[in-house]
Amino acid sequence: MDRIEYQIISSLLNKETSIWKLIDLQDASLPEFFEKLKKMEEKGLIEIKNGRVAITEKGRNLVKLKREEMKCPECDGTGYEILKEIKRDYEKIVQNRPLPIEKYDQGYISIDGVLRRVSFMMERGDLHANIFVIGDDDFFSIASALTYVPKKIVAIDIDERVINFINKIAEEYSLKIEGHVLDLQKENKDFLHKFDVFITDPVETLPGIKLFLSRGVASLKNKGSGYFGLSTLEASRKKWYEIQKMIHDMGFVITDIRRRFSVYPDDGKNFFKYQGDVILGKKFYVDDESWATPM
Amino acid sequence: MDRIEYQIISSLLNKETSIWKLIDLQDASLPEFFEKLKKMEEKGLIEIKNGRVAITEKGRNLVKLKREEMKCPECDGTGYEILKEIKRDYEKIVQNRPLPIEKYDQGYISIDGVLRRVSFMMERGDLHANIFVIGDDDFFSIASALTYVPKKIVAIDIDERVINFINKIAEEYSLKIEGHVLDLQKENKDFLHKFDVFITDPVETLPGIKLFLSRGVASLKNKGSGYFGLSTLEASRKKWYEIQKMIHDMGFVITDIRRRFSVYPDDGKNFFKYQGDVILGKKFYVDDESWATPM
Repeated sequence: MDRIEYQIISSLLNKETSIWKLIDLQDASLPEFFEKLKKMEEKGLIEIKNGRVAITEKGRNLVKLKREEMKCPECDGTGYEILKEIKRDYEKIVQNRPLPIEKYDQGYISIDGVLRRVSFMMERGDLHANIFVIGDDDFFSIASALTYVPKKIVAIDIDERVINFINKIAEEYSLKIEGHVLDLQKENKDFLHKFDVFITDPVETLPGIKLFLSRGVASLKNKGSGYFGLSTLEASRKKWYEIQKMIHDMGFVITDIRRRFSVYPDDGKNFFKYQGDVILGKKFYVDDESWATPM
Repeated sequence: MDRIEYQIISSLLNKETSIWKLIDLQDASLPEFFEKLKKMEEKGLIEIKNGRVAITEKGRNLVKLKREEMKCPECDGTGYEILKEIKRDYEKIVQNRPLPIEKYDQGYISIDGVLRRVSFMMERGDLHANIFVIGDDDFFSIASALTYVPKKIVAIDIDERVINFINKIAEEYSLKIEGHVLDLQKENKDFLHKFDVFITDPVETLPGIKLFLSRGVASLKNKGSGYFGLSTLEASRKKWYEIQKMIHDMGFVITDIRRRFSVYPDDGKNFFKYQGDVILGKKFYVDDESWATPM
């Protein structure tokens, strides 16, 4: 039994669960995960029926402790609190958000996920800053601006609907946000060397990550900080090592990696959805491990 | 106001605090921290008296949110719970531990810090394993073995008192631990390619980290995981970048970095203490940034 098997089995101790939920509870990439499931079924450790996975008696006997007991229930294992005041406002605001469309590969993270990023950046000392948000269909710009701590926030997105929404809310709530429609593939000199902090959720191929982070680095004044989300689902350890090399070569010091900090809402809307045209083009979207965004 | 200044000021909003406590609440290395404090005093943002730092009215007006509000109080911002059963036993056991002596650069982390490491490794799927503990004056081997989850634990330490204590407790509680006296500078073939996981708190110079991690890597069977603690106090961003390069060059993928996860007990015993002979010798102990372990 290796670590992935242990993660799977100890996650199943309480109750059977859907394959899609289980994906989230372990560290392997999608191809590795499905191979592992198959092997565990063959060994009689688990049973799979109609997309749901249950532990067998044989599997149950292998594990002594449940993983859930280890995570703090108060903060969902993140270590961070959510500011109640901004949650109230942010929740109300995003009820009317433009819905994700596949052309732009959108798919927003959960409300609590966005708000925990605000807490994290605040606690790290990076909220009181000029902040550059690269791609903002999560409306992180709005969430962070609702604290009234940032000096100024510039949000860019290729989707006009997103930017119009941001600018409308910014005016309504007197938030220090400027939204601009921008295709990341084109450099814009207005946003060079102007910011203390950038934040982005890159497309998760190496060229995609490189494009997003390069724009982030170029936006920083001098030394600065970058925050970005990556998923483990589309990255084997080998690919992750390549990503790490790229981050290092770009001059970053990796100071914090917080796993399962931002999760997608558990409503199934964000997976296996994008089949059509994606505007950044195939070279940024597809590699051997991009099972979650198939084209 | 930069991120370090923001961290300092927002940490002082509630109450004045000692310089030593304040060190822990910000990210800069010690030389950077003391330079920053001096500048902030000159700018009238803080006042320093008898080793205690207070915020001024001018400083107070700069900050809108307290950082403490962001951290989960339930788990001390770590995201992890402590298993009650092993805490009870571990606490009782370490009451009789051999006291730290400077010859070996010992200085144990807090009880909760050790126990959170156990929870973290469990949740990451790495506790059900053959574990190699490199240097064990924290008695992590005992804490993790008390879960009865690990297959086997081998703990090595240069200090005979530590190893005798571990072996005595292992027998008393029927724990699967083997303790061996070993000077890390000498390779021992018995511990090559035998383990799934290693854990260590290296001496924090580049040669020191390299020595500890190399022994860790060599102990792993094939692919495996390593857990190690580093402090930010003795590392500027530049030094941290060098550490990152070394970790990368050794073939590690950095998958989790959890800040302020293990802290030293707040009793002042562990700082500015070692003035004498340290057995690993100067080359492993001293660099330009090692202010916390001066010789």
